[in-house]
Amino acid sequence: MAEEGKTVAESATEMVQIVLPNDTNMLGNLLGGTLMHWIDMVGAIVANRHSRKPIVTASMEGLDFHVPVKLGFLVILKARMNYGGKSSMEVGVEVYSENGLTGERVHTSSAILTYVAIDFNGKPVPVPKLILSNEEERKRHEEALERKQRRLHRLSEKRT
Amino acid sequence: MAEEGKTVAESATEMVQIVLPNDTNMLGNLLGGTLMHWIDMVGAIVANRHSRKPIVTASMEGLDFHVPVKLGFLVILKARMNYGGKSSMEVGVEVYSENGLTGERVHTSSAILTYVAIDFNGKPVPVPKLILSNEEERKRHEEALERKQRRLHRLSEKRT
Amino acid sequence: MAEEGKTVAESATEMVQIVLPNDTNMLGNLLGGTLMHWIDMVGAIVANRHSRKPIVTASMEGLDFHVPVKLGFLVILKARMNYGGKSSMEVGVEVYSENGLTGERVHTSSAILTYVAIDFNGKPVPVPKLILSNEEERKRHEEALERKQRRLHRLSEKRT
Amino acid sequence: MAEEGKTVAESATEMVQIVLPNDTNMLGNLLGGTLMHWIDMVGAIVANRHSRKPIVTASMEGLDFHVPVKLGFLVILKARMNYGGKSSMEVGVEVYSENGLTGERVHTSSAILTYVAIDFNGKPVPVPKLILSNEEERKRHEEALERKQRRLHRLSEKRT
Amino acid sequence: MAEEGKTVAESATEMVQIVLPNDTNMLGNLLGGTLMHWIDMVGAIVANRHSRKPIVTASMEGLDFHVPVKLGFLVILKARMNYGGKSSMEVGVEVYSENGLTGERVHTSSAILTYVAIDFNGKPVPVPKLILSNEEERKRHEEALERKQRRLHRLSEKRT
Amino acid sequence: MAEEGKTVAESATEMVQIVLPNDTNMLGNLLGGTLMHWIDMVGAIVANRHSRKPIVTASMEGLDFHVPVKLGFLVILKARMNYGGKSSMEVGVEVYSENGLTGERVHTSSAILTYVAIDFNGKPVPVPKLILSNEEERKRHEEALERKQRRLHRLSEKRT
Repeated sequence: MAEEGKTVAESATEMVQIVLPNDTNMLGNLLGGTLMHWIDMVGAIVANRHSRKPIVTASMEGLDFHVPVKLGFLVILKARMNYGGKSSMEVGVEVYSENGLTGERVHTSSAILTYVAIDFNGKPVPVPKLILSNEEERKRHEEALERKQRRLHRLSEKRT
Repeated sequence: MAEEGKTVAESATEMVQIVLPNDTNMLGNLLGGTLMHWIDMVGAIVANRHSRKPIVTASMEGLDFHVPVKLGFLVILKARMNYGGKSSMEVGVEVYSENGLTGERVHTSSAILTYVAIDFNGKPVPVPKLILSNEEERKRHEEALERKQRRLHRLSEKRT
Repeated sequence: MAEEGKTVAESATEMVQIVLPNDTNMLGNLLGGTLMHWIDMVGAIVANRHSRKPIVTASMEGLDFHVPVKLGFLVILKARMNYGGKSSMEVGVEVYSENGLTGERVHTSSAILTYVAIDFNGKPVPVPKLILSNEEERKRHEEALERKQRRLHRLSEKRT
Repeated sequence: MAEEGKTVAESATEMVQIVLPNDTNMLGNLLGGTLMHWIDMVGAIVANRHSRKPIVTASMEGLDFHVPVKLGFLVILKARMNYGGKSSMEVGVEVYSENGLTGERVHTSSAILTYVAIDFNGKPVPVPKLILSNEEERKRHEEALERKQRRLHRLSEKRT
Repeated sequence: MAEEGKTVAESATEMVQIVLPNDTNMLGNLLGGTLMHWIDMVGAIVANRHSRKPIVTASMEGLDFHVPVKLGFLVILKARMNYGGKSSMEVGVEVYSENGLTGERVHTSSAILTYVAIDFNGKPVPVPKLILSNEEERKRHEEALERKQRRLHRLSEKRT
Repeated sequence: MAEEGKTVAESATEMVQIVLPNDTNMLGNLLGGTLMHWIDMVGAIVANRHSRKPIVTASMEGLDFHVPVKLGFLVILKARMNYGGKSSMEVGVEVYSENGLTGERVHTSSAILTYVAIDFNGKPVPVPKLILSNEEERKRHEEALERKQRRLHRLSEKRT
């Protein structure tokens, strides 16, 4: 397939979840780990849509939870490609909570994840070039490149 | 209760999980998000044991997944307090996977999370002083303090 | 709140799900009941967003499953208001499956559900007027009205 | 296997479920989608017992939910064959809720589903003849035939 | 309510479950613990139906698993009252597995559980007298009485 | 691998679980069946770690639940080998509940399970010799031998 590249919009994904009883702790707050699970799932869909390959999660950047999310609320997760390397991809996820009874929507978290496209033997495979269409996408791409440097530095430090 | 402080050992926790079919993707690899969920759960237990209060997840530091974990493997998560502030706590989690048929154990991830102790109205409440008992615990405590500065800096930047 | 009415777009919702092992039967096909569960969930979000009240499912119209959906596929569900009565709402849900490795997207099902907005004692409460903005929305609204007549007829027959 | 046919009683199935916290919304009512999931599961068991083949859900007829079912209640689902075609089967499901503390049992829903027996390549395969043993079974069989005509009509309309 | 007693038949319950991927280990065998969970659930329904009170599981007798149950099989659980004391109840559960493709049904396990009826403060409350209707029920009742003696003996030993 | 035997300590396992909403009944008490599920899971890990083979649950001895466990509590399960036969293994599990807010820890149950190591065709395979290191382990081993006799007796009785 003579794949020339893919735009950010082609793989961008929005997910919505309802906070059900088993997603909450004894105060009726959404468990942090359940939110991380949803963040990884929507990020994985974006990476899968960009690469059209099986993918694995390689890393997640620091993540802050600004506001508690309550039982019965909706959680909206918006994810899109920031950067595409040879076989790795960086995805940004914005998380919002929505109070079902008032409609009030609050920004809850921003997450950054990297995924690697692999074949059925687990070997990395190339992904399409990421086509940047506007100033904002170019800015996000540049920030992603800086993070990549820091991440590689962090990994090489861990090895020694 | 005249709580004078608690050692790291008093709240340290080890959790073990089996990778069942629903925890895996179509290649039989453990989902990244399920692992994050377990990491948050064991971290929350440590914070709850140190504070003996309801707690909420406040942040997670950058996290790398070094090796895929397969269906049927065990996942061992070891968590302990790094730092205790006024009402916030930093917990470190080491993740190992264990091949059930060979016993081979591999270090899979290191995670750092912060939790805040709260009352039943969601207001932060004080936590016991963390008693450091040896050189390693003091070193981890110091690193945690540096991370705290960086995290506060990161949060204040986001606000502006 | 001087609610004058709400457009179809204000409550329209898109949901995406990944077919994981526990959602499938022994042939690796998505269970029909799991799909119905997702259909009801996205429909309930639309009804909740339109009414901003707790809601209950009142009925589901006949539903055909045109093509099997396989393990690892994405399921995309698009839902929007067709009709808003005094306290009942009719929601239409279009279901598509997407092959993660080829991107091929197939229309899988169309579902029609009704929900009733209730208060915390379970009593029906009024919902905002549905504002129709174009020809297609008006056509869907009219078809919904006909279905409502048939449904009321069906229910009255059952009572006798 | 010289299968001559099977009676309705040979595949009839009764299922019982307890409404646990994760099956309910924030008012403690059973989620409509969870009930649909159970309906599909018991219907699939009947179709599987009649055909002794893998089966897929092909359609569900219109479904009304007459009364809310509460947390802790039992749900009893009674399912049986209405009609057996070449490889398709129509199953009727009656749903009752039972208040665990009073024993009061209420009829909650009636559902009609069709299933298709398939082989391991997904191709339709023949099912045993349905043996009708009494007047009621013959009446249900006739109504199912009428529904089949309407369903085929509905499907052919959708195609154009 | 002038409850004079209840027969064994009045609370007898049959449950059916399908073995789905997440209920199995890496060999595709039903997990022992999942089966125990279903056994407890159907036993609890019987105790709840006999007492019409909230109930708690007090004990389970020795349990053998005679044959492995495979993915896609049905599990049929038949439960009924053996004995009713002041507030405790003994329930017997027979477990069968059914191969969906051949119909072969195998006896898999026999379980004996005791439950205690309680009020909303957790205090034991009286349960209806168990009416025995035939020789078999009387025999099961007598065996249950012997087990009760042994169980009380076992518990008093543990306390010393 | 010239496996000479394994000590009890080599396979001993501790598991910790949090009681979440879906693990509880309508009084907020942990379901007995969920606890049995966790008991079987930690026992299976011990048997798998001792044998390094796939294993199946063969039996569970009588089990008493001394105290109710509440929503939000921790459950700690400590499991270790009591006895290793040719291909069967007996594992003992001690269950404690821990009140997250007070730290109070209570002994909840003691369970005894047997597992059989199998190959990928389901045939029993030999397991390493169990090395007993102290008086307590020798005592537990002896009691396990007695139980084994009783179990074999029980099984042979059932067959006739």
